[in-house]
Amino acid sequence: MPISKSKELEETVAGNGLLHRRFFLAQGAALLGAGCANLLVARPAHGQTAQNLSPWMRAPGAGMSGYGSRSRFEGQVQRTLNRPTGTGASRTPLEHLEGIITPNALHFERHHSGIPDIDPGAHRLLIHGLVGRPLIFDMDALSRYPMVSRIQFIECSGNSRVAGLIPEPLATSCGELHGLVSCSEWTGVPLSILLDEAGVDPDAQWILAEGADAAAMSRSIPMKKAMDDAIIALYQNGERLRPDNGYPVRLFLPGYEGNMSVKWLRRIKATTGPSMTKDETSKYTELLADGTSLMFTFPMEVKSVITSPSPGLDLQGPGLYEISGLAWSGVGRISKVEVSADGGATWGEAALSEPVLDKALTRFRMAWQWNGGPAVIKSRAIDETGAIQPTRDALIENKGMNFAYHYNGIQAWSIGADSQVANIYA
Amino acid sequence: MPISKSKELEETVAGNGLLHRRFFLAQGAALLGAGCANLLVARPAHGQTAQNLSPWMRAPGAGMSGYGSRSRFEGQVQRTLNRPTGTGASRTPLEHLEGIITPNALHFERHHSGIPDIDPGAHRLLIHGLVGRPLIFDMDALSRYPMVSRIQFIECSGNSRVAGLIPEPLATSCGELHGLVSCSEWTGVPLSILLDEAGVDPDAQWILAEGADAAAMSRSIPMKKAMDDAIIALYQNGERLRPDNGYPVRLFLPGYEGNMSVKWLRRIKATTGPSMTKDETSKYTELLADGTSLMFTFPMEVKSVITSPSPGLDLQGPGLYEISGLAWSGVGRISKVEVSADGGATWGEAALSEPVLDKALTRFRMAWQWNGGPAVIKSRAIDETGAIQPTRDALIENKGMNFAYHYNGIQAWSIGADSQVANIYA
Repeated sequence: MPISKSKELEETVAGNGLLHRRFFLAQGAALLGAGCANLLVARPAHGQTAQNLSPWMRAPGAGMSGYGSRSRFEGQVQRTLNRPTGTGASRTPLEHLEGIITPNALHFERHHSGIPDIDPGAHRLLIHGLVGRPLIFDMDALSRYPMVSRIQFIECSGNSRVAGLIPEPLATSCGELHGLVSCSEWTGVPLSILLDEAGVDPDAQWILAEGADAAAMSRSIPMKKAMDDAIIALYQNGERLRPDNGYPVRLFLPGYEGNMSVKWLRRIKATTGPSMTKDETSKYTELLADGTSLMFTFPMEVKSVITSPSPGLDLQGPGLYEISGLAWSGVGRISKVEVSADGGATWGEAALSEPVLDKALTRFRMAWQWNGGPAVIKSRAIDETGAIQPTRDALIENKGMNFAYHYNGIQAWSIGADSQVANIYA
Repeated sequence: MPISKSKELEETVAGNGLLHRRFFLAQGAALLGAGCANLLVARPAHGQTAQNLSPWMRAPGAGMSGYGSRSRFEGQVQRTLNRPTGTGASRTPLEHLEGIITPNALHFERHHSGIPDIDPGAHRLLIHGLVGRPLIFDMDALSRYPMVSRIQFIECSGNSRVAGLIPEPLATSCGELHGLVSCSEWTGVPLSILLDEAGVDPDAQWILAEGADAAAMSRSIPMKKAMDDAIIALYQNGERLRPDNGYPVRLFLPGYEGNMSVKWLRRIKATTGPSMTKDETSKYTELLADGTSLMFTFPMEVKSVITSPSPGLDLQGPGLYEISGLAWSGVGRISKVEVSADGGATWGEAALSEPVLDKALTRFRMAWQWNGGPAVIKSRAIDETGAIQPTRDALIENKGMNFAYHYNGIQAWSIGADSQVANIYA
């Protein structure tokens, strides 16, 4: 079948080989063949027949199971742990995932004193403080309330600190650098319903949320957020929460720094002001160059990262590639992602995969004709409020090198003539 | 805090206590308290303090892990197996899940000769037959192609046979009756791209898709579908496919009967007509009352089921409940779901949880004030083409009792004065 040339699709939209996003938006096969002979990475199959049966076709396979598991060939896809104890973090291997949903087994973890082994039959949620009617909920009672479901990300405010705020770029993977972000379908009871039932005193402008872990991890949250879109989450990606994500119940605050979505939630106290807990004074404040600190910087900023290619996922010589990555913003939808293949000199607009949801990870894709020469690839996200992901230089100029939280600088990957991908500052 | 009555929210929209869908669409706390004193299923917490520490707060918890697992208290949530061997099916426990995403470990299974243990390094996909250039792909090559992601359901065409096409209603769970349907985010390469690269002969109006299991499960698919929205799926809910869902690669045909989305895909052959494989002649045809059979009935019909309350999830006495369920259609989006609490005499419109996606499970919710008397609850879905889920009687009148596939009749649950929920024909 002859393949006709299409001039349109050969058009680059930015320097060093970035192709128009129409390239991936169009699904028609006819569009794709055009002018892209080096997309062909399959081998010709001359005279191939279907006669050669693999071993797994010669005998019946394994039986069914009540709760399935993944292939033994996929064991290398793991969260990365900075230490094996209960205090610290493990990161989602973003470079090995596709789409926007993070499987529960690979959702990032951040624990302040390990994962409590909570018996849901014994666990209670208390709502007290400045309320007319203090209430206590067992898990069965919570399950009676109306629920909402939302596909949204959660990001640790310390995410990407090691990607931008150390003197030399770390030679490590995308997940190690940026994997304190994950995205799930969360289902739970709107907190507003429970607070309303308790009857909040008009003087109560904040709440305290406390976890049932050994650290009794606690954060203060403005009442406005609690009454807006906060949920008492019981389900993650369809099933009940996992212990490492707050089983049997957690708070979920869309778009806010992850640690405020208190896991293993045991009480909510209505208060006049913030409680100034150890977890919001000794940590989770941004130390600026002048010695002052920013406190209560809640929403996570607009951000993006290219997950493929990325360090460890090297190219295989010159040719056509798909650049794929994730973008997100704690204040709304992603409106645009731009990609550069020439270190930021020129930018082209990436295709966004539907659905593009409020405060969810958003998958972007861009076609790239790599000529085999050195290249620096970057992405920058823009959200529906018009906020633009800043460069690393601009962030450091603005906040210094010690702010430690809410780092959202543009990530650069370099690609050498040897096809290897590396983390660089550029 | 005084709770003001709101006449609006007390309005029932259909018989036997169904409340307006605005009840759940509105998130404002003020709306919910109104007139719903018996929503209160929490206990008052007089003088409760936070001093009583549970055992899990007295010592640091467990450490982190590379690939997480669920709580030991959730082990009862399992797929149900009709037999433990490799041939047969296991069903998603729909009544224990929330939202629209099915976790991979609980996705339904249907195997014709067990689960092959495929080495992805040795597996190949062959495209041959009426093509200009036969091609063979290893998994690395497939990963180079542009991908798309979509959140869509897959349903076995034999789903719900036991819910409607046996003489007496089975006393069992919603999942046992309807759990051969699940919903995931699927990511893969558009099949049209690969076919285009192979160069399809204009005479090739069909393809044959064959799996690498011991049954070499094979189906014929119209070329039009193959070139439209078919994908060669590599990822499910972010991670690589599981073996029970086709690892390392499967076909995914949105909206079509599940068995056509051939798992462990090893070859696609372009053909002039259907191949009449054993899997589409001895099975997957609908035997009608007059002795003729319907063949190649591909798209799954509009359908819904109430997952809660449902058998095994009994009520706890009179009061306010949320009726929650799932709706889907193989030809497009769900446009409306109606719920009845009086056996179908009157219907009220349920709230649909966003996002409402093309060929995806859609979660619906309805507020219900149960007065404690006997009730029969039902749901019926309508899709964007205007197709309406039929009654069981209408289906049987139309197709008889032996058609075995594509059963999409309305499901009725009865609720007795003892709060127990049962499967009935009504």
